[in-house]
Amino acid sequence: MAHAAPHYNRGMKFKVTHREKRARAGVLETAHGKIETPVFMPVGTLATVKTISPEELRSVGAQIVLSNTYHLHLRPGEKLIKRAGGLHQFMSWSGPILTDSGGFQVFSLGHMRKVTNKGAIFQSHLDGKRVVLTPELAMQIQRDLGSDIAMVLDDVVGYPATKFRTKEAMVRTHAWLERCLLGPRLKHQAVFGIVQGGMFPDLRLESAQFVSNQAVDGVAIGGLSVGEPRAKMNEMLDLVEPVLPTNKPRYLMGVGAPIDLLEAVERGMDMFDCVLPTRIARNGTVWTKRGAVNLFNAKFKTTFKPIDKACQCYTCQHFTTAYLHHLLKEREVLGIRLTTIHNLHFLLELMRGVRQSIRQGEFAIFKRRFIKEFGA
Amino acid sequence: MAHAAPHYNRGMKFKVTHREKRARAGVLETAHGKIETPVFMPVGTLATVKTISPEELRSVGAQIVLSNTYHLHLRPGEKLIKRAGGLHQFMSWSGPILTDSGGFQVFSLGHMRKVTNKGAIFQSHLDGKRVVLTPELAMQIQRDLGSDIAMVLDDVVGYPATKFRTKEAMVRTHAWLERCLLGPRLKHQAVFGIVQGGMFPDLRLESAQFVSNQAVDGVAIGGLSVGEPRAKMNEMLDLVEPVLPTNKPRYLMGVGAPIDLLEAVERGMDMFDCVLPTRIARNGTVWTKRGAVNLFNAKFKTTFKPIDKACQCYTCQHFTTAYLHHLLKEREVLGIRLTTIHNLHFLLELMRGVRQSIRQGEFAIFKRRFIKEFGA
Repeated sequence: MAHAAPHYNRGMKFKVTHREKRARAGVLETAHGKIETPVFMPVGTLATVKTISPEELRSVGAQIVLSNTYHLHLRPGEKLIKRAGGLHQFMSWSGPILTDSGGFQVFSLGHMRKVTNKGAIFQSHLDGKRVVLTPELAMQIQRDLGSDIAMVLDDVVGYPATKFRTKEAMVRTHAWLERCLLGPRLKHQAVFGIVQGGMFPDLRLESAQFVSNQAVDGVAIGGLSVGEPRAKMNEMLDLVEPVLPTNKPRYLMGVGAPIDLLEAVERGMDMFDCVLPTRIARNGTVWTKRGAVNLFNAKFKTTFKPIDKACQCYTCQHFTTAYLHHLLKEREVLGIRLTTIHNLHFLLELMRGVRQSIRQGEFAIFKRRFIKEFGA
Repeated sequence: MAHAAPHYNRGMKFKVTHREKRARAGVLETAHGKIETPVFMPVGTLATVKTISPEELRSVGAQIVLSNTYHLHLRPGEKLIKRAGGLHQFMSWSGPILTDSGGFQVFSLGHMRKVTNKGAIFQSHLDGKRVVLTPELAMQIQRDLGSDIAMVLDDVVGYPATKFRTKEAMVRTHAWLERCLLGPRLKHQAVFGIVQGGMFPDLRLESAQFVSNQAVDGVAIGGLSVGEPRAKMNEMLDLVEPVLPTNKPRYLMGVGAPIDLLEAVERGMDMFDCVLPTRIARNGTVWTKRGAVNLFNAKFKTTFKPIDKACQCYTCQHFTTAYLHHLLKEREVLGIRLTTIHNLHFLLELMRGVRQSIRQGEFAIFKRRFIKEFGA
């Protein structure tokens, strides 16, 4: 039950230790421990990374977990989690936690909200209750949750979007950023600003410059991976990267496809999160070095070997593909646990390889080799 | 993937090491290891104990797992499991396995079957396909699965049942027992006979005498815990116990409520199985020393302590009741995993206590104390 008391850093420390062109390897120190970057953060929306335990999370190599302000505000509520001793203690995860601000939910639950300069007005997806999420409230919730890294509230637009709407959202995001920085937070809690600007180069650049000049501990790139072509995302990253501070971590939000991660690391990004590995796992899709495969496929019925015999994850060390196929078909919980473990391990191993290759000045080779086998 | 090769015993060994009145503590040796009795066997119907991994199964103290002939025959099929290297390897459980014969499913899926002297004719609950489960087929399936202990096919009646139907089922069960003993089996595979006879003392006694005189490795008591009052079950056990061989294990089928286990141990029973601990766990019900509680109850929302702070299970060592309440309400898989772990640990700890108390000649005291706190 008990956790070692965090050694409060009074703010976060970040150091880039190695570079290969724009790609960076570094170390991020938080109140709950060090994180090696580039890092992928598994998503634990409701104070649990779906289907797996904190122990398993650690065993697959997770260094930090992301959790969701919006969802936890609605249920069980940040006040309850505060009474439980904070989110770390509530979910029994003693490592670092980043909390998003709810900004992305304002976007993804679009039909149920209205955004004004004051904040986002939601209808709760649970009971229809009206919730006004202001920048100040987003910060207060995250303070109560006690995360190591809090995100500012932002206004996210989809793809495609008009320039008018995109600019409005960007201006609002900037105003909210300033309010968030004046809002409540824990002494040791880092705050990341978020760059918006949609797919408009001038707006993206303006936003990147604005956020980079604020007293933030890190800079996040929001509003990408919202349906645009991959080339468009890379173009936006190429554009903003030279503007971003070199001494602060850069977090590309909502990206978790292996190739996207490699492209973004190449463009100087340090942190990532996405539900992709865990969500596709629950649909029976697993990643292998040769790309994704769906284990529901009848051809796996008699595959009496692991997904990947070189893989060191618990799943591949103990179970055959035929057994996983059986469990998935029978809707047995163990099936989606084992695919989740495999996918997270796969992605976190990929990131370990990425870090190592940057340290050795071989990231470009690493990336080319991976894509050649995995497929683009 | 690999398992230690089983040291084939060419049959099972059983030794009663301690007695307290009719209660017995002993050791059962199988091809996949020793089992201390009295023992509770968690149920892994479809080659998985629902929601948990083999590693967790071991960590809660499971010594042996039960799996289901009928279910595995339909999907994925015993031939596939045989090709996988047998059930142990398929499910990555290197400990002992007992397979039931499908007899109970003939009963519980009642509206979909017809029983004749030849065998049980099913409509598959999956695709409606006709399956004829004969005693010979039941044995052949269990041989292909490669279990350590195979059960004979029996004809189970419910409660209440007429004497005519009960006698017919008993006579048929006896005839099937003889056919099963002539049927296929692995050299190291033990076979248990099953006593039927419903709630009729003369039939129960006749059946117990018949089965006890056969060349079986153990004697199971079937057709109890089918809806009759607890006193009736105990009465039947009191009746048959003196007739049963003292040098063979006695297995009371389908019983897993804590009090029932204690009553049956007192009446000389050695082995038990039931879906109860795992099934109620998935409905949010957990056992504590003071009885069962349902964690969905709103009063647990703010219970910031474990289910039982003295409990050594993974769940109680890491999580509060408030967190479990949250997970269960949100239908998060981790919730039912953690309640399953707790309940199995609870029941297997109870059995550990039972064994220890018999060895020390204090079972009567142990039983009285447990019931006093738990409630009858």
